[in-house]
Amino acid sequence: MTEGIDLYQKHKVLLEDAITALSTRQFFSPYPEHPKAYAEDLDAQGKDAFGRLLNENFTELNQTADSWIGEEVSPVWQYGIGVKYPSTSIDTYVSNSAHAAKSWKAISIQDRAGILIESLERIRSRFFELAYATIHTTGQSHMMAFQASGPHAADRALEAVAMGVQELTRYPEEITFVKPLGKYKLTIEKSWKPIPKGIGLVIGCSTFPTWNTVPGVYANLIAGNTVIIKPHPKSILAIAIFTAELRKVISEFGLDPNTVQLAVDTLGEPITKKLAEHSDIKLIDYTGGSSFGSYIESLNKTVFTEKSGINSVILDSVEDIKSVAQNIAFSACLYSGQMCTAPQNVFIPEVVRTENGTLTFEEVASQIAEAVKGVIFHPKMGVGTLGNIQSDKTLKHIKEAKIQEGDLLLGPQEIINPEAPNSRIQSPSVIAVNSQNSVYKQEYFGPVLFLIKTLDTHESILLAAELAETKGAISCLAFSTNTETQITIEESMNAVFTPVSFNLSGAGFVNQHAAFSDFHVTGGNPAGNATFADATFLNRRFVWVGNRRMES
Amino acid sequence: MTEGIDLYQKHKVLLEDAITALSTRQFFSPYPEHPKAYAEDLDAQGKDAFGRLLNENFTELNQTADSWIGEEVSPVWQYGIGVKYPSTSIDTYVSNSAHAAKSWKAISIQDRAGILIESLERIRSRFFELAYATIHTTGQSHMMAFQASGPHAADRALEAVAMGVQELTRYPEEITFVKPLGKYKLTIEKSWKPIPKGIGLVIGCSTFPTWNTVPGVYANLIAGNTVIIKPHPKSILAIAIFTAELRKVISEFGLDPNTVQLAVDTLGEPITKKLAEHSDIKLIDYTGGSSFGSYIESLNKTVFTEKSGINSVILDSVEDIKSVAQNIAFSACLYSGQMCTAPQNVFIPEVVRTENGTLTFEEVASQIAEAVKGVIFHPKMGVGTLGNIQSDKTLKHIKEAKIQEGDLLLGPQEIINPEAPNSRIQSPSVIAVNSQNSVYKQEYFGPVLFLIKTLDTHESILLAAELAETKGAISCLAFSTNTETQITIEESMNAVFTPVSFNLSGAGFVNQHAAFSDFHVTGGNPAGNATFADATFLNRRFVWVGNRRMES
Repeated sequence: MTEGIDLYQKHKVLLEDAITALSTRQFFSPYPEHPKAYAEDLDAQGKDAFGRLLNENFTELNQTADSWIGEEVSPVWQYGIGVKYPSTSIDTYVSNSAHAAKSWKAISIQDRAGILIESLERIRSRFFELAYATIHTTGQSHMMAFQASGPHAADRALEAVAMGVQELTRYPEEITFVKPLGKYKLTIEKSWKPIPKGIGLVIGCSTFPTWNTVPGVYANLIAGNTVIIKPHPKSILAIAIFTAELRKVISEFGLDPNTVQLAVDTLGEPITKKLAEHSDIKLIDYTGGSSFGSYIESLNKTVFTEKSGINSVILDSVEDIKSVAQNIAFSACLYSGQMCTAPQNVFIPEVVRTENGTLTFEEVASQIAEAVKGVIFHPKMGVGTLGNIQSDKTLKHIKEAKIQEGDLLLGPQEIINPEAPNSRIQSPSVIAVNSQNSVYKQEYFGPVLFLIKTLDTHESILLAAELAETKGAISCLAFSTNTETQITIEESMNAVFTPVSFNLSGAGFVNQHAAFSDFHVTGGNPAGNATFADATFLNRRFVWVGNRRMES
Repeated sequence: MTEGIDLYQKHKVLLEDAITALSTRQFFSPYPEHPKAYAEDLDAQGKDAFGRLLNENFTELNQTADSWIGEEVSPVWQYGIGVKYPSTSIDTYVSNSAHAAKSWKAISIQDRAGILIESLERIRSRFFELAYATIHTTGQSHMMAFQASGPHAADRALEAVAMGVQELTRYPEEITFVKPLGKYKLTIEKSWKPIPKGIGLVIGCSTFPTWNTVPGVYANLIAGNTVIIKPHPKSILAIAIFTAELRKVISEFGLDPNTVQLAVDTLGEPITKKLAEHSDIKLIDYTGGSSFGSYIESLNKTVFTEKSGINSVILDSVEDIKSVAQNIAFSACLYSGQMCTAPQNVFIPEVVRTENGTLTFEEVASQIAEAVKGVIFHPKMGVGTLGNIQSDKTLKHIKEAKIQEGDLLLGPQEIINPEAPNSRIQSPSVIAVNSQNSVYKQEYFGPVLFLIKTLDTHESILLAAELAETKGAISCLAFSTNTETQITIEESMNAVFTPVSFNLSGAGFVNQHAAFSDFHVTGGNPAGNATFADATFLNRRFVWVGNRRMES
């Protein structure tokens, strides 16, 4: 154990602030989201550090390596990044984890919190390296890759730790229980312990390799569970860096670094099902497509899922259609619709009221298509907003879907990133359809935006709510100047466990879910069964056991 | 709405005290458990009130009645009590519940808490009537029937309400969120609402018709869900009284009494599966056997179960074998082993250390058998401790199990209740077996106690832990004068999510689980997936949804 270092004391104030933030839901983001908040040379250093990782074995994990594997391809360069990761057998991962559990669950909750926050502080110095790792695996822009994989992910990890400490220390460790019995009394010494459930498997996704992974990892760890991370085979490097730092801090504390392991696979030889079905795996966190997610939910384990959904915009009435169109366009274009919070369907009535009279559906649709053009052709921001398509499959799926019904208001435009001519860019298609057409009633992951003509807002609400209830939804964006209509929208969407964001403008976008303030996914509809990070996200990871003693 | 009555204000202090008790886990029991704490004439009044219910339609529920059904048989009298309950179709129960949900979920959490606590205060005046209803459906003794169905059930109901209020008011209703953006700031109005999941089905058991039912009922109701209670067809009357009082208070408040309904069935025409599988039923609470419980868990719903388990006693070393034998004997005899917390298996090593030298297994076994005789033949307490066997099936199952292996130290004794000569009494069989014999590795619900000879306490712990892990366990009683052995027992049993009670004596019995202090069932082993009442027992019943607004 590292002598003289008390990591809990070192991070106590931060932890307490984080716990307070959980309750107040006010803005709290200890890891600044803007790259300019960090020293000027860090970006270049991060880029260099990333460069040194290319075409090498990622030895920093210091894990058992029977072989070295990796097949990540940069969506920006369109060629492999050549990083190889250690690989071993399922049984070795599991037995390593079981062995590490002995020491990890034995230390105090405070020590665990100290170690976990220390790891975030170490990772802070690698935010730019993480950003480049993320750009060249997910295709995100520099800004999004920095924010999502670095500070925002660290915020979410800290959120899980804080919620964990709050819940794990909820009951007294020991009390003397005295029950009056007439003239006598019954005295019993009672104690309570939160017992970890066991080994947790955390299955990552290709588009947000750290942001969607670290909440489950840190939640498991603070609860005393050990973790095996199974990243998406095409999006490993960012979470590998996170994992390496975690392992280093755990080692320095004198504990077994196999408390957290990275278990990498390839598309050709996947290991996820074998891991998930292993009898020693007690918990599974999963982010990804719905059909695999439903398989994970069907396993008789403690499961936390974020699957896909179909997010709606309900456009009822507006003050300024230009502002509204821009807001929708930006949210749809951001990372080419590859965010789980991005809107796919915009429900627009035949007639839309504005401050300056009414607009027809066609006029509104045309404004939105124009606004999308404005975003994607923006000379400074267009390429950065779109980012790149993470996977060939995403493009292929959309092409194969043959969305030929309705009115193609805007087809894929040729967008060129002068700094990366091979970049896998695709601007969103904007398609106008009548509400009777069912083409929009499935999820199209990626750059597609449907503008759906409804009779009135009542129909818009019915359709958006039906889709949320049957297919799932993570977000809903609504525009209405009418208070009663707002209430109807809120009640109807909330009843299918979908949050609503009203009249966003300026820097407010529906895609944003801030740690400590916004719950991510409600857990109430098919988009997922869990929430970053409510109390249940932590409490289901351990079991309260109370022991009693009388003087013998 | 009842004018001028603010039930929340009326019960605010009690609610706040209850919320405090949840955290301190200290003794808290606002409904005194001893009959003598109540006015002297209440017992006779309760008996009379019960008498008036016999052989009549139970009209007090004031529910839709397509027909009147009921087939309860008094285990004391051995003939039917003749009470008939209103019955209607599954669809009517469900549509009634869906209709009632509109008004119930619309009122504030405080109003719900006020109504629910008021119902408990009303039920307080019927505790003795509840006791007689319980005696003549479950076969419990007067004391147990009074305590379990009256004050202890009310405590557990209040516990669920208190935990509900704590969790449902955990986040602010509204805040102004301000995010600094360099020179600018992003201002968003945010609000959070706990949205109830829908209609909850609560499935009761035959032996504890209110104690095991009301936690799920009150937890659902405080969270804004409506409830359909499906009692065991042989144990209805007590929960019918509870339900009637709840419905009356809800009506007086101007709300729809179908917020909670009683849906009765018969053994010949069961309705539980039809209700459980109905698509509008979103939550299920279940107490009962394991195989039906596992079916309930396999439904894709929010499910809370308490199933069966095999509870162990680990006897390592003792100060005074007489005191220990008496403690074990009383816990095994109490209600003839029909409590879910009652021990079935006592693991005893070949040699037991005591203050006064060692004892052999045979000597200890003989002491326990003698102590059982002492309890059952006790002139004042014997009959009351044993109570009656609730169901013929319980006796039949044990007889059919043909436990002829091992040494029958004590067979069923003839015990006569002079006040009720038809009483279905059966004293526990005490059977000594070797640990190699697997006869004790299944659950025998009712009056059977195995004394199992092990090589040493190490083997005892292994066997008790294995049974808890594979078959489930709700309690574990251990006797050891050695601190290190106590730690080993605690760690081993806690690792399979089983609480341990050490060295109980005097008025301390392993069967007792006090509301606000002891969690009932950990949820971590096959004995059940939920706990009365931790935060998750409440939090899984509703979904947090956050809405956001910008100035339009």
